[in-house]
Amino acid sequence: MKRILVIGAGRSATALIRYLLEHAAQYQWHVRVGDLDAELAKAKVAGFATASALYFNIEDQEQARLEIGQADLVISLLPARFHIKAAHVCLELQKDLFTASYISGEMKALAAEVSDRGLLFLNECGLDPGLDHMTAMAALDQVRSVPQAHIHSFKSYTGGLVAPESDNNPWHYKFTWNPRNVVLAGRQTAQFMRDGKYKYIPYHRLFTRLEEIEVDGYGKFEGYANRDSLQYRGLYGLQDIDTMIRGTLRRPGFSEAWNVFVQLGLTDDSYVLEGLASMTYRQFVNTFLYHHPSKSIEEKLCDYLNIPPDGVIMQKLSWLGIFKDENIGMTVGSPAQVLQHLLERKWGLAAHDKDMIVMQHQISYSAGSEQKDLLMSLVSLGDDQDQTAMAKTVGWPLAIAAKLRLTDQLQDSGVVVPVTPLYYKPILKELEQLGVQFIEQEY
Amino acid sequence: MKRILVIGAGRSATALIRYLLEHAAQYQWHVRVGDLDAELAKAKVAGFATASALYFNIEDQEQARLEIGQADLVISLLPARFHIKAAHVCLELQKDLFTASYISGEMKALAAEVSDRGLLFLNECGLDPGLDHMTAMAALDQVRSVPQAHIHSFKSYTGGLVAPESDNNPWHYKFTWNPRNVVLAGRQTAQFMRDGKYKYIPYHRLFTRLEEIEVDGYGKFEGYANRDSLQYRGLYGLQDIDTMIRGTLRRPGFSEAWNVFVQLGLTDDSYVLEGLASMTYRQFVNTFLYHHPSKSIEEKLCDYLNIPPDGVIMQKLSWLGIFKDENIGMTVGSPAQVLQHLLERKWGLAAHDKDMIVMQHQISYSAGSEQKDLLMSLVSLGDDQDQTAMAKTVGWPLAIAAKLRLTDQLQDSGVVVPVTPLYYKPILKELEQLGVQFIEQEY
Repeated sequence: MKRILVIGAGRSATALIRYLLEHAAQYQWHVRVGDLDAELAKAKVAGFATASALYFNIEDQEQARLEIGQADLVISLLPARFHIKAAHVCLELQKDLFTASYISGEMKALAAEVSDRGLLFLNECGLDPGLDHMTAMAALDQVRSVPQAHIHSFKSYTGGLVAPESDNNPWHYKFTWNPRNVVLAGRQTAQFMRDGKYKYIPYHRLFTRLEEIEVDGYGKFEGYANRDSLQYRGLYGLQDIDTMIRGTLRRPGFSEAWNVFVQLGLTDDSYVLEGLASMTYRQFVNTFLYHHPSKSIEEKLCDYLNIPPDGVIMQKLSWLGIFKDENIGMTVGSPAQVLQHLLERKWGLAAHDKDMIVMQHQISYSAGSEQKDLLMSLVSLGDDQDQTAMAKTVGWPLAIAAKLRLTDQLQDSGVVVPVTPLYYKPILKELEQLGVQFIEQEY
Repeated sequence: MKRILVIGAGRSATALIRYLLEHAAQYQWHVRVGDLDAELAKAKVAGFATASALYFNIEDQEQARLEIGQADLVISLLPARFHIKAAHVCLELQKDLFTASYISGEMKALAAEVSDRGLLFLNECGLDPGLDHMTAMAALDQVRSVPQAHIHSFKSYTGGLVAPESDNNPWHYKFTWNPRNVVLAGRQTAQFMRDGKYKYIPYHRLFTRLEEIEVDGYGKFEGYANRDSLQYRGLYGLQDIDTMIRGTLRRPGFSEAWNVFVQLGLTDDSYVLEGLASMTYRQFVNTFLYHHPSKSIEEKLCDYLNIPPDGVIMQKLSWLGIFKDENIGMTVGSPAQVLQHLLERKWGLAAHDKDMIVMQHQISYSAGSEQKDLLMSLVSLGDDQDQTAMAKTVGWPLAIAAKLRLTDQLQDSGVVVPVTPLYYKPILKELEQLGVQFIEQEY
């Protein structure tokens, strides 16, 4: 019997844990799920004999050693900053560690030791990062196998959105993952390449520089550039490419309205607001506008940001209630925290709502004298509130990788990211069987 | 004989050192000047028998102890982050320490120990911070002495500019202090109060929210809000004030052109540019603009930022040479470093150029049924390249404070900022004799 220790039983762990539990009898696994919220952990394994749940605190060294010591493989779904603590114990006790998070500098620094001991620390094996890498590399390797192929453009967009059947607000957006990360998204200069030229977009301009993306059967989206796309040239073997952009998807019209928050400074998380306890949403907005003896807050906003007073942007803002003279109900907070507080009331998923993951890779290449474009699109819809598209696309790649490792089908060691066929072939194959599938169009 | 140790002999130390040297014989001082550049230190004391110069490195604990141990008072003009190192040695060896820098959290933390030993660690005793505090408190205390006076508005603006006689470029600006600090100025949300309401301006909007200021005989200026003005309510005893703004002055038209750099992202210091070694200024600008198959860089810039193509903004930009296809001549750098590199070539002070300090406090108050406005303005012009207005207004307050302390006229202890009459009365009086004087207008 092999023991799998899953630490972190939050929202994104649901599909992962269910996959492991459903395969536990077949492969003789014991699935042990630990979380600071023991009840949550228990609920996730309820009804399965091959599983156990516990209160688990990664900061408790003694407990971490005991539990990791008894495991054959550790999967960490804790917030990213805690992975390194698990990593140190795993290294000491010679256990494999899998995560869905970006590989950190600290994690990279363990590479030689991890390799020496024949261990596998697999990172970035979720959705984004994860599925994006694997599908990109599958597509790129396919193109590279074409004689004389020269890839000159790679664009890739991903979005966590609400499913069309649950899309019933003017923003066409709901929170399907960590709201704080959504509010703070993009607060870093976007770096990419376009037609052989380096391009940089500072945060305050990001939501005005959009690309239109279309996905068959799902309509139009808009994409804004996402952090540092340049570093992926090395990871994907595209050092001499002319266009390299990774971006985030929203429904059309979202970004021009979100840009209002950015322009006002409502997404700033660097300081605490004065006088918040007695502040209304209307006063909150006015705090970021200039003083005027007679103009209304709506007039000042439209003048300041050059927005039509009766247009779709103001409709979106009004729908959120930011012009209401209603107490915010917080005592301490940054502008970003106030905005999040408001958005959570309006953008929360209802019980029956379903989410949707959309991913599209656009590859342009030449083969001899021919110019070709390859379009790969994926749409994954949530089943319900638990088996969300987000949970499935984050959790399944990790679960499949764990299965491969425990059944000796993943012979590798080191601190790695899944960008080679060793990973993407079996993982994408099984994801296809699970209904997570890219549609390929060449033209 | 009393010994004064001055550490840091850079540009802003010139007037301070000269003042001390000119008073050394009268008060029987020995002035010892230390710098990492021993030649610079030597040059600053050349010709004075009551002085000595040395290579001094604050990181060398042994040397710091030896030199500070022999001093009666230490004046640090090192970059602000090094003051705390001097402070620890001064505390141990029971010496007074004076600086012109903002008081740091680390420095504040020493308050109890400094008081217990009867020492005086005087901070923020230069121009800004320094002269601003002292003149503000002198004016505010004067108003407070009026029966029934209630102060409802305090605005204060300071600028380090070029003197009118040396003002010969379209920006009406030259570097009269640390260029790096000028390029990075304002990269923090401005916080202030206006008519009883808290106001916050994010950096990317700062240079569009200007106040017009006029100084008799020197014409018009524009002011933008400077960092956190709210904290000065406590320092100045203005807890229930309605309007509280501190700002930075430039000549009219500067900010709308500088805003182009902010909007493009050229003042970003958070990452290093790729491909810089072979980049021209024109390509540098294009790096921050969108791709377009046919428009020129100038057209793209004007469209992107909604700037008239033949207006004064484009004239200022062209004059700087940012559209020239001329190699930048740097191999590694952030956007802000590239911008600084360019500006230093165009905004440097010529040998005969003079600088100018402008400061204005605007106080509005009621006394019974009367509404009154008090305007206090100061203009200080540089004498030459050495005795700049900046060096005089930074160095003299510190030098005068040192003289007062060494002649037993400054009986105080603790980690302090000069906001009480004990400091501002004698210091402002002597500054007036030196020609640094506020003009007061009431109406």
